[in-house]
Amino acid sequence: MNDFSDVVGRGLNEQDLRTVLLQVGRERYHNRHPYHRRMVEGAMSKTELQAWALNRYCYQAAIPRKDAIILSHAEDPAFRAAWRKRIEDHDGEDGRSGGIARWLHLATSLGLESEEVKSQRLALPATRFAVQAYVNFCASHTLLEAVASSLTELFSPDVIAERVPAMLARYDFVRADTLAYFDRRPDQAARDSDFALGYVLRYADTPERQQKVVDALVFKCDVLWAMLDALDYAYGHDGVIPPGCFRPETNG
Amino acid sequence: MNDFSDVVGRGLNEQDLRTVLLQVGRERYHNRHPYHRRMVEGAMSKTELQAWALNRYCYQAAIPRKDAIILSHAEDPAFRAAWRKRIEDHDGEDGRSGGIARWLHLATSLGLESEEVKSQRLALPATRFAVQAYVNFCASHTLLEAVASSLTELFSPDVIAERVPAMLARYDFVRADTLAYFDRRPDQAARDSDFALGYVLRYADTPERQQKVVDALVFKCDVLWAMLDALDYAYGHDGVIPPGCFRPETNG
Repeated sequence: MNDFSDVVGRGLNEQDLRTVLLQVGRERYHNRHPYHRRMVEGAMSKTELQAWALNRYCYQAAIPRKDAIILSHAEDPAFRAAWRKRIEDHDGEDGRSGGIARWLHLATSLGLESEEVKSQRLALPATRFAVQAYVNFCASHTLLEAVASSLTELFSPDVIAERVPAMLARYDFVRADTLAYFDRRPDQAARDSDFALGYVLRYADTPERQQKVVDALVFKCDVLWAMLDALDYAYGHDGVIPPGCFRPETNG
Repeated sequence: MNDFSDVVGRGLNEQDLRTVLLQVGRERYHNRHPYHRRMVEGAMSKTELQAWALNRYCYQAAIPRKDAIILSHAEDPAFRAAWRKRIEDHDGEDGRSGGIARWLHLATSLGLESEEVKSQRLALPATRFAVQAYVNFCASHTLLEAVASSLTELFSPDVIAERVPAMLARYDFVRADTLAYFDRRPDQAARDSDFALGYVLRYADTPERQQKVVDALVFKCDVLWAMLDALDYAYGHDGVIPPGCFRPETNG
């Protein structure tokens, strides 16, 4: 296991920096987490999937605010025009037809109440802390680091390609319609991460900046990983649900 | 289990508000957490105690910064003079003789390297997110809410009174000197929480403010609870240590 805290030396060329960033994902992206593994192996209770959907909603709901912070730090209209698409994708034309609405549909398809999910009040505190850490990171770091922290999207098409067919095959209460959120995400994520990676490789042009973009991606992997830690601790085998959080009425 | 989100009605008198705040602690303070229970039952490995000390250091180290934020929001010199004692307690006369230094001594007495602990780089991401959430809470909420969030200290003398003799009796590698941090804390916490409770009872003088101080204490209990969730998940039975975090060389 690399800790990636000192990988740049006297500086990397673009290709080597790209290789390091991909290596961060290979070692630290949350597709390696036990909670994800159990999800795709078909070993989860409906409660565990509900808890995942309910908590992950907090992340989805924060993403456009995070992207608005990035917009607010960007001087270049062309950059902003490209990055703005992310907000459009999540919020949709009218605020009710984008990615967040589709995630809400996923949650309600699993049997959760819409208002309960949207209120976020039954989410795990650790979820809220991790999501807020991500928003704060983008507010308190350079534009380059905020862009680099989005590069987990490089790895998301693969995880979606694994998750969707596995869930359809292994959980009889999951239908194609349940997972409609994921239909558009691979293309959107590929477009967005191509842009972000190009930006990072172009502007991370000193050893110090290169280390900072690697650190930013490690940080973001930590955010996603910590969210699954908390889910597994609360809802996994012999889980301990923190006070005040989502409790299943029945274990489906 | 109360969720405390609607406990104020048309307003409480001081005595009833005090009762509600104490009830929050009875239901949600981290002395009820399985990690704490195992600690005082003598059922922990040395690794688990080390991980607790290493992660809790991040919390200790942030407290004077949190208190400085509170000072910066206070208009009243008398309030500031009282609250300033907290910073003095944690930092000491010279920055090397206060509560943080004593916590570091606790960690090194358990076999950790001082620099490793101080760097915080092996702490769990969830610890960092929770601690930062607490600091941010005090920065982004009213002075009254920030003061109320400190009221977990009402409950800390009891948890110390349980923890110290249990650890001395049940872990042969724990000596009185190891736990010197806790010698002064009960008196300090009683003095500080008396002051904070008096302030809260005096200034939470509308139903809205009363609900906000209850919410603030619930939030703070969530912070402490989430820190133990993360420790238990990573270092408890069959724990899954997140990438890059503290790993024991030997299981003591």
